[in-house]
Amino acid sequence: MYHELKRHIEEVIPLTDDEFSLIIAHFTTQKFKKNEFLIRQDERVKHTYFVISGLLKLIYHDMSGKEHILSFAMEDWWETDYYAFYSASRATMSLQCLENTEVLCITFEDFRRLCETLPKIVSFFLQKATSGHIASQQRILSLLSSSAKERYEQLLHRYPSLFQRVPKKLLASYLGVSRERLSRLTT
Amino acid sequence: MYHELKRHIEEVIPLTDDEFSLIIAHFTTQKFKKNEFLIRQDERVKHTYFVISGLLKLIYHDMSGKEHILSFAMEDWWETDYYAFYSASRATMSLQCLENTEVLCITFEDFRRLCETLPKIVSFFLQKATSGHIASQQRILSLLSSSAKERYEQLLHRYPSLFQRVPKKLLASYLGVSRERLSRLTT
Repeated sequence: MYHELKRHIEEVIPLTDDEFSLIIAHFTTQKFKKNEFLIRQDERVKHTYFVISGLLKLIYHDMSGKEHILSFAMEDWWETDYYAFYSASRATMSLQCLENTEVLCITFEDFRRLCETLPKIVSFFLQKATSGHIASQQRILSLLSSSAKERYEQLLHRYPSLFQRVPKKLLASYLGVSRERLSRLTT
Repeated sequence: MYHELKRHIEEVIPLTDDEFSLIIAHFTTQKFKKNEFLIRQDERVKHTYFVISGLLKLIYHDMSGKEHILSFAMEDWWETDYYAFYSASRATMSLQCLENTEVLCITFEDFRRLCETLPKIVSFFLQKATSGHIASQQRILSLLSSSAKERYEQLLHRYPSLFQRVPKKLLASYLGVSRERLSRLTT
């Protein structure tokens, strides 16, 4: 069951079996049903999650209660409310299941301990944080400079499987367009 | 002249004088005049930059030639086109001086060598990449969920000095509003 994480880390750094045993000892597994919350806005954030199977949405509810989608996370993705995780503050976002989902979880304490015990894992997390930063920059650029049709096509090109797995209403919210507008784009 | 970088790194990890000498041996300094380019869209990206003094804008020119502002970078900020820097590909963005600017520069080769020679510096870069990712996520949320007035107030609150240093036209572009709209917000 842990081989997904091993393969995923070994795309960045080589690992001996002993090193991987050490890594996995810092994680626990959890299963969530569709619609369950891993993180709720305003509550403490205990974990960073690695998705083994399933699909999550990272969302923000504004003052009027409207839901905004910051990102989707599927197999091989890391997700949490990073600000709250690192600063031990309350979540400003929620993380909710769109499908039954199985994750590996690591607490901040275990994350720190793992980085101290196995310094080479820090290079792996640096690569992931950099990719996250680059992906967020791409999204900002696309919100600033692309039309709704272009944003739709970029998303379809990068993550075709999302279109089978995510309800149209949520895709529209992610793209920042109305459901009706998305329907016109997809026909 | 290098004490800004030492102080900046020591906010995250402690350093001996020997360790800092090792770090600084991987950097060179460069000075640029106002309006000069550090990175030009479509050209190779050779460096990541640490701003000692001055102010930069990271920009994207769309197909119609319109300029979009991804971020500003001032003293103590790290900036480059990260995707191009890490993948050795051509820049999709430009980095240009808004003031006369002095930077420390590191090449990808020297960055890799430094991380191998002094593994604890990787923790520092991880902290910076994570902060970059969090800041980008905040900007996405603000583009998706805040009004122009709210975005203006958030920027004023977080970076009050930008309002003295950056022309109104560029602030408007960063906020995704017209210059006229910004004028109405600021009066």
